[in-house]
Amino acid sequence: MTSRYLAELISVGTELLRGEVTDTNAVYLASELPLLGIELQAMSTAADDREQLCQLLRQAMERSDLVIAGGGLGPTEDDLTRDCIASVLNEEMTVDPDLEQQLRAMFSRTGREMPAHNIKQAFIIPSAISLPNPRGTAPGWWVEKDNKTIVALPGPPRELKPMWKNEVIPRLRLRFPGEEILSRTIKTFVIAEARVSELVQPFFQSDNPTLGIYSHPDGIHIRMVARGDNARQLLDTTEAQLEEILAPHVWGKDNDTLEGIICGWLSRRGLTLATMEDGTGGLLANIIADTRESSNCYRGGLVVCSNETKAAWGVPPEVIEQHGTISAEVAAAMAVAVRERFSADFGLGTTPVASTDNPEGKQPGLAFIGVADANGTQTWQQNYPPTWEGVRNRAAISALFRLRERMIELKLNTS
Amino acid sequence: MTSRYLAELISVGTELLRGEVTDTNAVYLASELPLLGIELQAMSTAADDREQLCQLLRQAMERSDLVIAGGGLGPTEDDLTRDCIASVLNEEMTVDPDLEQQLRAMFSRTGREMPAHNIKQAFIIPSAISLPNPRGTAPGWWVEKDNKTIVALPGPPRELKPMWKNEVIPRLRLRFPGEEILSRTIKTFVIAEARVSELVQPFFQSDNPTLGIYSHPDGIHIRMVARGDNARQLLDTTEAQLEEILAPHVWGKDNDTLEGIICGWLSRRGLTLATMEDGTGGLLANIIADTRESSNCYRGGLVVCSNETKAAWGVPPEVIEQHGTISAEVAAAMAVAVRERFSADFGLGTTPVASTDNPEGKQPGLAFIGVADANGTQTWQQNYPPTWEGVRNRAAISALFRLRERMIELKLNTS
Repeated sequence: MTSRYLAELISVGTELLRGEVTDTNAVYLASELPLLGIELQAMSTAADDREQLCQLLRQAMERSDLVIAGGGLGPTEDDLTRDCIASVLNEEMTVDPDLEQQLRAMFSRTGREMPAHNIKQAFIIPSAISLPNPRGTAPGWWVEKDNKTIVALPGPPRELKPMWKNEVIPRLRLRFPGEEILSRTIKTFVIAEARVSELVQPFFQSDNPTLGIYSHPDGIHIRMVARGDNARQLLDTTEAQLEEILAPHVWGKDNDTLEGIICGWLSRRGLTLATMEDGTGGLLANIIADTRESSNCYRGGLVVCSNETKAAWGVPPEVIEQHGTISAEVAAAMAVAVRERFSADFGLGTTPVASTDNPEGKQPGLAFIGVADANGTQTWQQNYPPTWEGVRNRAAISALFRLRERMIELKLNTS
Repeated sequence: MTSRYLAELISVGTELLRGEVTDTNAVYLASELPLLGIELQAMSTAADDREQLCQLLRQAMERSDLVIAGGGLGPTEDDLTRDCIASVLNEEMTVDPDLEQQLRAMFSRTGREMPAHNIKQAFIIPSAISLPNPRGTAPGWWVEKDNKTIVALPGPPRELKPMWKNEVIPRLRLRFPGEEILSRTIKTFVIAEARVSELVQPFFQSDNPTLGIYSHPDGIHIRMVARGDNARQLLDTTEAQLEEILAPHVWGKDNDTLEGIICGWLSRRGLTLATMEDGTGGLLANIIADTRESSNCYRGGLVVCSNETKAAWGVPPEVIEQHGTISAEVAAAMAVAVRERFSADFGLGTTPVASTDNPEGKQPGLAFIGVADANGTQTWQQNYPPTWEGVRNRAAISALFRLRERMIELKLNTS
């Protein structure tokens, strides 16, 4: 096992503990670190409280090589990150004359006198160098001492991100040179998280690559992370093994999206798609239209929330009357109607999802999906947990998944 | 000052430390606690790692009255929250027969065999009672021991939120009784967060009520939280003052949604609405259809992503040719066309949002919204930051906001 670098992230600000602001810095920095071969082992949020922040810093420095603090670099009494780093390292803060000059210049450029308390932002300690902040008055700190590194960044994301990219990443690469780190994700659908976990159990024994299982709206994702010179080969081998085990459920990898894959297949053959939705109420159209690849293949969609409207757009009223609106027959008729109305090659239809008090007396949670193409129609029955929220999303993804299956059947899944 | 209860929040999941998922649970729970008179003093994120999670739990229990853990209740090897709580409290886990039966029933309802691993989700310890989870297989835990309370909630927000509301809040009120805490939220639109912050600055001096400013997709929300016997009166006074300052931007309060307000106004007068979308690609339809109130007033929607399709559904081709598809004229024509096609009282249209390389050479970020009614049409020009993401959402909310304005103009905003 080669050496790994461990990091810890501390977000500073009482407003975060009151739920007033979503901490987007944390998720941004957390997603950046694996690409540098640095493992983030903990994240925490501190109030603007000297004792708490100092304790968190001390604890983090004990167990990590790198500590990143976001926020608390402002000019007010409440901004304590600098003070606490100095205190934990037992160093004296002094005013850096260059920083002071830059600060005064920044204020005079906007025609203002520098408020007295802003001098705090020119403070420095012997172990720190300051990181320029072209977008604000708070410079960052890069601190190296006793084989530990501390990085202090300003809280506003528009100041933090460029400082991270331009000032911190290059220094981290030098400070923490490392082996190659690669990751790959396999995406599955129509299989439960627990079942995936059971199937891939043997792979959890390995610590290179390591495996992670994540539940997403478009199914269960399995992420492999491999290190070292043969990282790529490790990924290839593991991927092949996982694909064999999970075969019928795997639909994509890494940045693939269901809608992107489908639109890719359609566009390459000059084929088109249209949708008519009830149960998914526009969500299906929205998912498809959100993909850049859809501009060539997506003819458009209809959102029809009543039988009257369905009939007006070509669903035969007698089909609705005979089978009820939550039926395979109506899903098929919706797909056929929208395919015709939009002159598309494929039509996709979703019926309402039965609620607990549906007048048709259908089993709550029941819905149907229909796919129409030149050869006819296919329908699928879906059974969801009978709750209102979340069903739309699952139904929309299911509809895409069923269209994907049909396209594979028709051998249209060529790249 | 009355006694305060202290809480700590632990989010569990290696995926959070890898930046794969934004931790929306943390900000949600953090914003909820002040309403219960409970002060959140720390938040942290733990990997799916037994030692780390146990240590965090132990530390949190030492210094807080209430510890909330989110995530780690799944059925896999990685899901360690139950194990760690049991270990920290030195209690044995056993299978709860009722929970097991419920789990098996849940699987059999969807026609599946319960995977062996899922039995973990029926585990319980003597100090815990289980909290039902109608939306997933992971029940929560409510634990009381040695004057400390631990709450374990499932990670998926759609499971966590209802469990929090229905199961946890009532128990917290009993467990941590306090002075009366009331809150009220004022919702604004078309005003920047920094400007709101500037305008309400004087109110931040007060510590009863306290003010919080939250940025949401439907605008900036200002939340007042008041304590004590005269809490209601404090809220009334502050609300009146804030409404005076923010008047033209305020559209609702508390649980109001734009779509709910609009559908309420329409339904009460027996009026109907239809939508034709390009730039918002089905999102507008989805927002409206998602509201229960829409069943009586929303006739349906069209998603049209090409000029050809727009023309096929009644937008005169000469209007598109003369003004370009990103124009006030096309927005108006879309609103008129869909109003007619769906026999609705109001038609709402959204044009594409100009991208940096739009063939019409329009300024990137430009879009138009059209509203049609019996009296004619109105259009609005929108200018968004020219980035792809987020624009759809803002455009859909803007369209609703413009329809609201028009309905006020027509004096249809009566309850």
